[in-house]
Amino acid sequence: MRILTVGLDADDTLWHNETIFRLTHDRFCGLLTEVAETPVIEARLAEIEGRNLALYGYGVKGFTLSMIETAMELTEGQAPPRVVAEILAAGREMLAHPAEPLPGVAEALDELSQDYRLVLITKGDLLHQEQKLAASGLGDLFSGVEIVSEKRVDTYARIFARHGTGPEAAVMCGNSMKSDILPALGAGAAAAYVPYPLIWAHEVADAPEGHPRFVELGAISELPAWVRGLG
Amino acid sequence: MRILTVGLDADDTLWHNETIFRLTHDRFCGLLTEVAETPVIEARLAEIEGRNLALYGYGVKGFTLSMIETAMELTEGQAPPRVVAEILAAGREMLAHPAEPLPGVAEALDELSQDYRLVLITKGDLLHQEQKLAASGLGDLFSGVEIVSEKRVDTYARIFARHGTGPEAAVMCGNSMKSDILPALGAGAAAAYVPYPLIWAHEVADAPEGHPRFVELGAISELPAWVRGLG
Repeated sequence: MRILTVGLDADDTLWHNETIFRLTHDRFCGLLTEVAETPVIEARLAEIEGRNLALYGYGVKGFTLSMIETAMELTEGQAPPRVVAEILAAGREMLAHPAEPLPGVAEALDELSQDYRLVLITKGDLLHQEQKLAASGLGDLFSGVEIVSEKRVDTYARIFARHGTGPEAAVMCGNSMKSDILPALGAGAAAAYVPYPLIWAHEVADAPEGHPRFVELGAISELPAWVRGLG
Repeated sequence: MRILTVGLDADDTLWHNETIFRLTHDRFCGLLTEVAETPVIEARLAEIEGRNLALYGYGVKGFTLSMIETAMELTEGQAPPRVVAEILAAGREMLAHPAEPLPGVAEALDELSQDYRLVLITKGDLLHQEQKLAASGLGDLFSGVEIVSEKRVDTYARIFARHGTGPEAAVMCGNSMKSDILPALGAGAAAAYVPYPLIWAHEVADAPEGHPRFVELGAISELPAWVRGLG
C-alpha cells in the first residue's frame, strides 16, 4: 500500500536528548556524593521515576520533581537547601537547553516532506516539546504535531487515521523499540528503528524477529530511500 | 450559520479546580508563616509563576516547582527540608485529587452530544488533564480532546477546523474571559462565559461590550438552550 504519512519521534531521533539527561544524572549524583554511592542513587532515582509515571507522566518537570524526591529519600527527609536549589536549576537548564539537531535530520525531513505528510509524535512536557520543535527550525515541515501521554498501539492507530488514511499507509521512525517501533507495528504501520547511542532503560525492548514491515537503519539519512521503497 | 461543534474548557467549567489551588495556596502560606506575611508570600509566588510560564507552561507540576522556588527565595536559599517535602506532597495531592464535576455538567453535555460534536479544550499537564477527564466519566461524550500550551485565536481556529468546519460553526464555553471567551470570539466562534466563583488573577479580563455572539450564563445547564438558539 502506498505510504501517505511518516510519523517521527522527536527526542533522540530529531535532536539530542538522552545525553542531556545523562549530564543531569551525573550532576545530580555529584550533589549527593556524601550521601550514597552513584549506583545506589541511580537505582533509587529510577525507582522513584517509575512509580511517579502514573502521576507525573513523562518530561523534564516530572523528572525534576523525582530528583527532589530522591534527594529527600536518600537523606531521610533532610535534603540540604543547596541541593534542592541545584536540582531546580538543573531542571530549568534542561528546559532551556537548545535542541541540537542530529546530523542529516533537516535534509531527510525536507526530502520526505515533498511526498509524504510528516507528523511529530512525542511524549514529554507539552510546552517543552513545542518549543524544541519551534527552535529546531523544522516546524514548517510538519503537517501535524502530536504530544501524547503514552505511546501505545491505539495512539498510532488514532494519529495515523487523523493525519492520513490509517496505519497501513504510514511509517513510524524513532529510536525507542518500546515506544516508537513495537506499538506502531502493532497498529499495522511500517517502522524504521534508528538507534541513538544512549537509551533510557525504561525504553528498552527486544527487536521484532523478521517482521516484514520493520527495518533498522544506521541513520535518519537512510529513511527517505527506505520509505520510497515501501511504495 | 448552523453550529456543528461545541468546545468546552475543563478546569472550573466541567469540574472544580481553583478551589483546590486555593487550598494549596493556604497550605503553602501556612508552611512559611515564620518567614513572611501571607500577602508577601502570595505576591512572590504570583511573580515567580508568571516568570516561569515561559519555561514550565501551565499545570500542577510547574506550580509545584514554582512553590519550591518561592520558598527558596523567601528564605534566601535556606528552605527547610520539611517545607520542601510538604510542597512536593501538596503537588502530588493536587494531581491525585479526584475531579469533582460541577452541578449540571453531565446532563448538559449529554444533551449537547446528541446534536453537536463536543471537544475538550484545556491547558495544564497533559497526563493530569487526561486522567481528570477519564475519572469524570464524561470522556465518551467528547469527539476530541485538545490539551494545549496556550489558548489564543489561532488555537481555536485550528481546533474548530479540525473538529468541524471552523470557528464560524462553533461555540466555545468556559470560565475564563481571557483564555476561553476572547480568543474564541477573535477566531470567529460564538462564546458562552460561565463564571466560576473563584478565578486565578492571571485569567482575568474585561467582558466584550455588546458582542452579538457572546453571552454570559449563570450555569452550564443553560448552555444547550443557548446553543440551539444560535441555529
